[in-house]
Amino acid sequence: MNIPIVRRVLEKNNAAAAENRALFDSLDVRCVNILGGAGSGKTALLEAVIPLIKPRAAVFVFEGDLATTRDAQRIAALVVPVVQLLTDGGGHLTAPHVRRAVVRLDLAGGGLLLIENVGNPVCPANFDLGEHARIAVLSVTEGDDKPAKYPLLFQRADLIALTKCDLLTHTDFDIERASRDARRINPTAPIVQMSMRRGDGPARVAAWLIDMIRSNERRTNTKLIHA
Amino acid sequence: MNIPIVRRVLEKNNAAAAENRALFDSLDVRCVNILGGAGSGKTALLEAVIPLIKPRAAVFVFEGDLATTRDAQRIAALVVPVVQLLTDGGGHLTAPHVRRAVVRLDLAGGGLLLIENVGNPVCPANFDLGEHARIAVLSVTEGDDKPAKYPLLFQRADLIALTKCDLLTHTDFDIERASRDARRINPTAPIVQMSMRRGDGPARVAAWLIDMIRSNERRTNTKLIHA
Repeated sequence: MNIPIVRRVLEKNNAAAAENRALFDSLDVRCVNILGGAGSGKTALLEAVIPLIKPRAAVFVFEGDLATTRDAQRIAALVVPVVQLLTDGGGHLTAPHVRRAVVRLDLAGGGLLLIENVGNPVCPANFDLGEHARIAVLSVTEGDDKPAKYPLLFQRADLIALTKCDLLTHTDFDIERASRDARRINPTAPIVQMSMRRGDGPARVAAWLIDMIRSNERRTNTKLIHA
Repeated sequence: MNIPIVRRVLEKNNAAAAENRALFDSLDVRCVNILGGAGSGKTALLEAVIPLIKPRAAVFVFEGDLATTRDAQRIAALVVPVVQLLTDGGGHLTAPHVRRAVVRLDLAGGGLLLIENVGNPVCPANFDLGEHARIAVLSVTEGDDKPAKYPLLFQRADLIALTKCDLLTHTDFDIERASRDARRINPTAPIVQMSMRRGDGPARVAAWLIDMIRSNERRTNTKLIHA
């Protein structure tokens, strides 16, 4: 694909992303884009974290997928509003996908919108959806070379979740090596070791998300709903 | 991205792919495109299979990556000619990438060209590189829902490798479920359970590749080199 085409696509996307962010800000909605490879554990992370946030804030979920509504069904079981965004073969969500879906949720009371992107460590990192923060998800079964090999995913993350840590002893994943490579391109994002099976990590990610909502409330002088 | 742009990109790619395939055919080179998510085990599969093929045929490797030459270094250790193709952020290889790299190998004696695509279960499946066959790689740690969620990857595969099967007991991956979903969209491709740690599967994949080279030799009346 040549550069002028890429530039046109990204310019169009960025304009829509800016509109989305302005809409979210006007409604006191914080939006978080969750990115990572297929099977890295994004849906499992949401399943573990959402129940910890629900008592403190309204939670909404967009599920991005090429095909099937399996992930959306898993999230719907948590009794939060969820919209499935199917890309029909596209490898990433775009800001217009999000803009078209926003009208299907009642966001008037504010809250937290979690967007699970298509399972793909590459393309989604290029597309701003209008989010306020990003979580990059890497499972230890994928290999510790991934922060070096997929730099954009980790560079633009505000939190890095290392998932499936219960399988660490069955892999040659070196937490030090992966963290060092991630730190080189992103010195500030917290790196959270997680195991949904053991229950390690979800509380820390939930606290980080609730902090983000609270900071916004202090800024805008609104209140946590359900609090 | 809108449909006319996608169509133009794909048409341009398909023309280059047809040229690549014609070149490979004229040189008695068989070309196999290896696709799968990041960390699915594509490089490990090559590391296990190449030593079994080398005594029977000349092997060449293209390593597609966004960044770093780590995979190419792993392959170079097997003492086969390898060219690293860096996409500079692009989520897949294209036929022009391959065309530009072909001149860097001496393919005049024929053989097997293995192309490891960028780790991404989505975009690479859309791009014909001029290959004769595709291998789709799925690790059991990615989850058994992936054949349903990433249909194109599996639909266009000529062989499906289920990797990291030594970790099966530590996951809830259901081989039956994954195979059933894969069979629904691709009734013919062999599904090979593999564990590079245990040495399960590489011999079967190597035999499949050598069969492919032999069928071509019968067709063109050439001979396996090194045989």
